[in-house]
Amino acid sequence: MKVRRIGLLTGGGDCPGLNAVIRAVIKTALNEHDMEVVGIEDGYEGLVLRRSRPLGLDDASGILTVGGTLLGTSNRSNPFGYPVERGGKLVFEDRSDDVAAYVQDLKLDALVCVGGDGTLSIAHKLFVERGIHSIGIPKTIDNDLYGTDQTVGFDSALTTATEAIDKLHTTAQSHHRVMVIEVMGRNAGWLALAAGLTGGGDVILIPEIPFKMESVCKVMEERVRRGKRFSIIVVAEGAYPEGGEPFVKRRVADSMESARLGGVGEWVGREVERMTGMETRVTTLGHLQRGGTPTPFDRLLATRFGREAVKLVAKGEVDRMVALRGTEITSVPLGEVAGRQRKVPPDSHWIACARSLGVGLGE
Amino acid sequence: MKVRRIGLLTGGGDCPGLNAVIRAVIKTALNEHDMEVVGIEDGYEGLVLRRSRPLGLDDASGILTVGGTLLGTSNRSNPFGYPVERGGKLVFEDRSDDVAAYVQDLKLDALVCVGGDGTLSIAHKLFVERGIHSIGIPKTIDNDLYGTDQTVGFDSALTTATEAIDKLHTTAQSHHRVMVIEVMGRNAGWLALAAGLTGGGDVILIPEIPFKMESVCKVMEERVRRGKRFSIIVVAEGAYPEGGEPFVKRRVADSMESARLGGVGEWVGREVERMTGMETRVTTLGHLQRGGTPTPFDRLLATRFGREAVKLVAKGEVDRMVALRGTEITSVPLGEVAGRQRKVPPDSHWIACARSLGVGLGE
Amino acid sequence: MKVRRIGLLTGGGDCPGLNAVIRAVIKTALNEHDMEVVGIEDGYEGLVLRRSRPLGLDDASGILTVGGTLLGTSNRSNPFGYPVERGGKLVFEDRSDDVAAYVQDLKLDALVCVGGDGTLSIAHKLFVERGIHSIGIPKTIDNDLYGTDQTVGFDSALTTATEAIDKLHTTAQSHHRVMVIEVMGRNAGWLALAAGLTGGGDVILIPEIPFKMESVCKVMEERVRRGKRFSIIVVAEGAYPEGGEPFVKRRVADSMESARLGGVGEWVGREVERMTGMETRVTTLGHLQRGGTPTPFDRLLATRFGREAVKLVAKGEVDRMVALRGTEITSVPLGEVAGRQRKVPPDSHWIACARSLGVGLGE
Amino acid sequence: MKVRRIGLLTGGGDCPGLNAVIRAVIKTALNEHDMEVVGIEDGYEGLVLRRSRPLGLDDASGILTVGGTLLGTSNRSNPFGYPVERGGKLVFEDRSDDVAAYVQDLKLDALVCVGGDGTLSIAHKLFVERGIHSIGIPKTIDNDLYGTDQTVGFDSALTTATEAIDKLHTTAQSHHRVMVIEVMGRNAGWLALAAGLTGGGDVILIPEIPFKMESVCKVMEERVRRGKRFSIIVVAEGAYPEGGEPFVKRRVADSMESARLGGVGEWVGREVERMTGMETRVTTLGHLQRGGTPTPFDRLLATRFGREAVKLVAKGEVDRMVALRGTEITSVPLGEVAGRQRKVPPDSHWIACARSLGVGLGE
Repeated sequence: MKVRRIGLLTGGGDCPGLNAVIRAVIKTALNEHDMEVVGIEDGYEGLVLRRSRPLGLDDASGILTVGGTLLGTSNRSNPFGYPVERGGKLVFEDRSDDVAAYVQDLKLDALVCVGGDGTLSIAHKLFVERGIHSIGIPKTIDNDLYGTDQTVGFDSALTTATEAIDKLHTTAQSHHRVMVIEVMGRNAGWLALAAGLTGGGDVILIPEIPFKMESVCKVMEERVRRGKRFSIIVVAEGAYPEGGEPFVKRRVADSMESARLGGVGEWVGREVERMTGMETRVTTLGHLQRGGTPTPFDRLLATRFGREAVKLVAKGEVDRMVALRGTEITSVPLGEVAGRQRKVPPDSHWIACARSLGVGLGE
Repeated sequence: MKVRRIGLLTGGGDCPGLNAVIRAVIKTALNEHDMEVVGIEDGYEGLVLRRSRPLGLDDASGILTVGGTLLGTSNRSNPFGYPVERGGKLVFEDRSDDVAAYVQDLKLDALVCVGGDGTLSIAHKLFVERGIHSIGIPKTIDNDLYGTDQTVGFDSALTTATEAIDKLHTTAQSHHRVMVIEVMGRNAGWLALAAGLTGGGDVILIPEIPFKMESVCKVMEERVRRGKRFSIIVVAEGAYPEGGEPFVKRRVADSMESARLGGVGEWVGREVERMTGMETRVTTLGHLQRGGTPTPFDRLLATRFGREAVKLVAKGEVDRMVALRGTEITSVPLGEVAGRQRKVPPDSHWIACARSLGVGLGE
Repeated sequence: MKVRRIGLLTGGGDCPGLNAVIRAVIKTALNEHDMEVVGIEDGYEGLVLRRSRPLGLDDASGILTVGGTLLGTSNRSNPFGYPVERGGKLVFEDRSDDVAAYVQDLKLDALVCVGGDGTLSIAHKLFVERGIHSIGIPKTIDNDLYGTDQTVGFDSALTTATEAIDKLHTTAQSHHRVMVIEVMGRNAGWLALAAGLTGGGDVILIPEIPFKMESVCKVMEERVRRGKRFSIIVVAEGAYPEGGEPFVKRRVADSMESARLGGVGEWVGREVERMTGMETRVTTLGHLQRGGTPTPFDRLLATRFGREAVKLVAKGEVDRMVALRGTEITSVPLGEVAGRQRKVPPDSHWIACARSLGVGLGE
Repeated sequence: MKVRRIGLLTGGGDCPGLNAVIRAVIKTALNEHDMEVVGIEDGYEGLVLRRSRPLGLDDASGILTVGGTLLGTSNRSNPFGYPVERGGKLVFEDRSDDVAAYVQDLKLDALVCVGGDGTLSIAHKLFVERGIHSIGIPKTIDNDLYGTDQTVGFDSALTTATEAIDKLHTTAQSHHRVMVIEVMGRNAGWLALAAGLTGGGDVILIPEIPFKMESVCKVMEERVRRGKRFSIIVVAEGAYPEGGEPFVKRRVADSMESARLGGVGEWVGREVERMTGMETRVTTLGHLQRGGTPTPFDRLLATRFGREAVKLVAKGEVDRMVALRGTEITSVPLGEVAGRQRKVPPDSHWIACARSLGVGLGE
């Protein structure tokens, strides 16, 4: 069956490279396959609330370098559990009927969903339960999706984090301070580990290795003995002390109110100051990691992913996620990746590198 | 009297451009005036604890682009009130005798002090009370020193802040969120005002204009009416609500413990979320603003200031601060600038610009 | 008389900051003065060929960070001598009648012209000869306009040039090479002089100081004696050897054909290699200097200039150019600046700085 | 046999990431294996001329972010054919005896050689003919080494090239011009192809696909028809017109004199202007591509490679090159990679992407 029209949406937290994906999907669909592309607004919310618009070559123009997503996105708009206020209370309704009807009304032969684990799991469920021909494109700055070597957004977030650590280095050195920097990564430490290595961190704390403050402080003290009067500690937001539990769990929702509780970075900073007496400062990098122009690596990955998604649709291969394996672009069943997370394995070469270079891991 | 040897120190919070000053001082002193330069380590602390080293042309090599200060700095080492622990208590002693003796032992004919208000006030006092031939070079990312149009570090911090706002823009837009960014500036709003204008902020809150949350929220709501589903609020850390008092005052010392209290940025974020129901995120830029390579503007200013300081010393003009007036480098008596702050005046052209462009000032 | 509608055009070579000017003009005109703004396309060409479009607040959105000009520009479209092909030959016709008619048809009460010397001279002539109420806004990466301390675009071009020199530094050092970098500046050396100072150049050659190759090579050799095995030479494209004439004059027009002749940078490179035997490489920075996002300095200057232009129009003050004087925005008669150039004066503080730091000027 | 002391050299053209390799080698060798590291200066030249110095942990400090190589490098210092002047003529002598003797005198158990094809081929020959225990680490911004998925330096050069194209985009658009940018790549088009994709080029010309100017111009004209008044052409320096031969061959040596001949970028620019009448400008990126701080990708790759090289030495595995395969670090025999080049294959996914997106390849 000839595919004539595809839908395209971006879901979950945004990251650099989404517009590059959108551009590649539009260009490949229109240039090579004579398909039409319909942009769904604000992730699955657009499918529930029936908000979309046609996308042409002009929409693909000038967006390669721009962060974010021109389609908008939303974090909490699962059509199988869509949040609605009823009598002053928030209840979750199944709106997948509406979604299926809208997809039919739009005459979409397939739906390309760019997102993280949440978005991709819903894409799979839409295929299984509603027969919607979904294709997933993996993006997350956390790089923790199963089935692909790398996700769109990771390299750009890593670059932002590395530049931040580079900046903190000189001020740490001038003031003989300990600088703690908290980067994103609730469940996996890819970003913190990579940024710690590329930024020359002295200690790296990740969720996969619950840390001991004694080990952390020992690194600082060892450095002082060697005449180094400053140190850099890179902490993933999901890291936690051995025997404790992740700070991120204390935040019921990612709202301003829960931000009040502070994160693991601040906690580590206070402990270092208390235990070593060394002057310490903490920087929580936050949403800067989602912004900015995508790096060349992410632009290329996004372009290759976007093109591949259209190719799969054209070949009638659906319910799959495009993926990077080594230098090749391939694809895996969405059902295999949905709901699974890729953590940093204990025998990771990155971890081995950290150890060889004398970086503390809080062990 | 021929000046044969000068001391050079950097005091207070560090910023990009200090090494560029150091380079210009060394090169001018050695190349043009056949003076020797002695680097004092860690600001006035080095004068109290007798820590210094000779600086040659090789020390000036390769440092122009590097942030921070190769001499180190310290925040709380006033020789007229030097903190010492006595019987478990912190007391402040006058160590200016030691400083005068060390300056004499080092045979320093003059002392070039690079720093903010604190550093420069001490430089003036060292001249008045101890007869030390001080010259000041103004640096602070806050740009709030009296007597000069601009200070070393401001343009670089502004660039970091602007790049951060640029990054937040795309993610704000993708998520239809309000993004609050808190930048430095305890007493003056120069940095927040400039960054708000250069980053395209929708609301700018500065210490000089106590703000009303109603006015802030009105801007957000007006934007929603015009179809703009996101907003950017730039807040100086010293900004405060009308009738309230600055959050920074609640922090007894700039320590990890007081960081716990949170800043005005977080407070504004919570209030926006509470009053408008719009999803809000806060980024506190923090020490990133002190780091990184200096901008060309700061490198040029630092070079001109450093050279001018040596020229003044050579001419025997001391107890002065070098200054920028328009495009000219000049100097002013240290006594005139010490202890005074330059705030954003109500009739500032920058404020007029903000108003003309429709930027909210919380009024 | 109430001003109801203004025209806006950008002329001459583009530079970062033009869109920031456009944004400020639109916002100030619409928000504060209830004027309408008509964008003229491709500089004066749009006035001759009757190409324009209304500009609203939406056009001002998202352009602050974008280089170039959304209105387009053109280099050779003087309405008083408009190039037309007649019988296979290029002749220049006076089309100012057409321009005056179009301005009247569009019901423009005033015309804001953003440009360099050429654009501003025409703006003045349109006022004098055609009674068009022109206002000029100065922009050029060369910074050589009379009547203002700085032009829009200079700080951004300087930043691009400085970053380029920073990059060349490490490779020069690794290979023990002489690196020559040619930057823009046909008539004035502001950009080369500033970039040479901010990039740490060892020799700076500008049009204001015809150079001797012997002096240039002496610096290289002196550096070798001091153990430095590399050097950086920054050359303005308009620099020329004493007794010779500017290479740029050999290029009849700025076309590909004349590019073939090579510039002064390549010539200096060959001479250095020939005279000293040191391995030399040349980089001609070219159009990179016109591109990229504007720096905060340029964004702020552009915003202030754009706002001021509208204010002048509103007050009925025309035939003037907005200008920066120290930290103030002011204005000067267009007739005073048209046709004049601001060169680096021999007693410039920048030149004095270069000498103090031991930078060679080819003297 | 316990390895006690290793030599380390960097050869060939420099690139970002070399210092990151040096840092990883030093840290791994000293921290984990108690080896000593001797730095050989200026590539193989240091082995011939007996120039070296011990490298300690302090040498590894602060260099991660710095481009170039602290050891220096040299392009033409093959010990098997070392250039010497004899009686006014340049002759090439076999100095491998001297090298072997110096390696013995230094008591080096192994030699880590960081470089491109030339450097690695010599490393292999030193093993085969002189029994020196060589290990190779692949670096080149051209990414054309056999046996590894990526080389150190490529991602950084790609980033510089992409940023340059981003800058040219806005000025091309403002002036309705064709912009040609020539990037490095004498034998392989990896850099041009990647930069063309990541920079959004409209035409990409690489050595693997000899180009037809008619095809190039057709893309420009097609764009004009679609209302796009500008185009970007990315050319590898080794690209050449069908039936012609590479311009780089005309340059006998990479000297200033041969630079005079101009490159393929300028030729393409002139042809476009001649054939289409469209205004065209050319930028030759040149040595900027070798400079700057390494990207996070390159820092990580360099760190992993440097560590792996020491591990191989410690295990007694020599005459091998460390390599990236997918996400894994592995190694291959030096003999397999020496003298071979990795070109962009015709069925490359990157080429397929270019075609899908409608990018012209000059075919």
